[in-house]
Amino acid sequence: MTTQQLISQIFSKKSFLCIGLDVDIEKIPSHLRITEDPIFEFNKAIIEATHDVCVAYKPNTAFYEAYGIKGWQSLERTIAYINQNYPEIFTIADAKRGDIGNTSSMYAKAFFDDLAFDSVTVAPYMGKDSVEPFLAFENKHTILLALTSNEGAFDFQTLQVNGKEIYKTVLETSKTWKNSHNLMYVVGATKAEFFTEIRKIVPDSFLLVPGVGAQGGSLSEVCKYGMNENVGLLINSSRGIIYASADVDFAEKAREEAVKLQQEMASLIP
Amino acid sequence: MTTQQLISQIFSKKSFLCIGLDVDIEKIPSHLRITEDPIFEFNKAIIEATHDVCVAYKPNTAFYEAYGIKGWQSLERTIAYINQNYPEIFTIADAKRGDIGNTSSMYAKAFFDDLAFDSVTVAPYMGKDSVEPFLAFENKHTILLALTSNEGAFDFQTLQVNGKEIYKTVLETSKTWKNSHNLMYVVGATKAEFFTEIRKIVPDSFLLVPGVGAQGGSLSEVCKYGMNENVGLLINSSRGIIYASADVDFAEKAREEAVKLQQEMASLIP
Repeated sequence: MTTQQLISQIFSKKSFLCIGLDVDIEKIPSHLRITEDPIFEFNKAIIEATHDVCVAYKPNTAFYEAYGIKGWQSLERTIAYINQNYPEIFTIADAKRGDIGNTSSMYAKAFFDDLAFDSVTVAPYMGKDSVEPFLAFENKHTILLALTSNEGAFDFQTLQVNGKEIYKTVLETSKTWKNSHNLMYVVGATKAEFFTEIRKIVPDSFLLVPGVGAQGGSLSEVCKYGMNENVGLLINSSRGIIYASADVDFAEKAREEAVKLQQEMASLIP
Repeated sequence: MTTQQLISQIFSKKSFLCIGLDVDIEKIPSHLRITEDPIFEFNKAIIEATHDVCVAYKPNTAFYEAYGIKGWQSLERTIAYINQNYPEIFTIADAKRGDIGNTSSMYAKAFFDDLAFDSVTVAPYMGKDSVEPFLAFENKHTILLALTSNEGAFDFQTLQVNGKEIYKTVLETSKTWKNSHNLMYVVGATKAEFFTEIRKIVPDSFLLVPGVGAQGGSLSEVCKYGMNENVGLLINSSRGIIYASADVDFAEKAREEAVKLQQEMASLIP
């Protein structure tokens, strides 16, 4: 998917909501647990209930790997279902991968070619040659961790290097990499006050923003400091939407929560 | 596996060789490609030919994920084969994972419980709460990226924070985390001169050392600066061993290369 297609979708749906499909089988309503593939059935119901009010789905690979081959099958079915039925939706493999060059190429192949995700999250610690193999895929997007939403973000990401935080160095350095126009960045909503500084470095890039909802971040604060003329934000909510109810009405309740966020977003879009 | 069991194995085999099972199907001898599970058949032959001269196997998950469900099956079969037949061997899932707490817990479950690996590699960028869920598993080992073997290591890992490189800050900070006795570290062989400084910070920890062979690192240099009284090193070789021949004699040639390294190691063990 091109960035322009993503932007068009955002303006037509008046939404920049990304729904995180982080499905823990323990939290799936019991009537689905007796099906052959509970995780896929759960995702399918969530997708059917929300696809018109969100612009992206983001399965976190950990939640699928935790169930081995069965989990990997659920992931394959989920991404295939989205691509077949709602090809306008932007898909994110939240995998946080990154390795030496030939290995990163294998990951890029897995997520972009085989699974056909539009994007994948990548960790920056191993530097340029660990990220560029992902960037080589045109119209695929590499979402680099910059400033994450968790407490541990302050362990290393905000340490000062030559009077500047590491996450800023990551942002600046990544702009010099080959095909850097295919980069987006993860910036946690729990750190809204940092968005002003971040926008000075990457004014045009899309930012994937976890941490609204369960983790305590504020949507309006993030938009105030982080939005650009193309919106430039994908706000992720996982638990707050998909586990809005643990009962037979889970999809309906998920939609209610998604609509609430979408309506707030509509009021914030320029 | 306990650290003491790993140490005992090292002294009894006179080896601290780890063999990287980074299997690219394009490089597998053609007679195996017609089997039902070429990657597993390849690994099985390599394991049968080398298990008495190495102490660890390290499948890199990227090479399995690249083949989707079939790849994941090959990985499951490989680790099960090692655990059933050679339970004394230390197993490493080279996965370079790391995410917010509840997600890291899912990864830890996947690799430690379900696949039953002894250890997993983890990226430090997201800090304490992204690593501690792995450390919570007793007699399982979390191998944190410190200074990697690739060129991109110099992009961020060696930047100075308060007059000290980031990878040293990672080493020092990680020692304060809960259950830090379950930590090991990745340190690339291509940076042998850094081992002296690293040993000042983590004198007793095991270091997993990629980069000998194809990437150009020197075994004797690494041992000179990095070895401690328990050896404290796991030297990884992947391509140099597993692709020593692309013909029907691949396992035999792999053994020859492994034996060469093991003999050099025997001469270096105190």
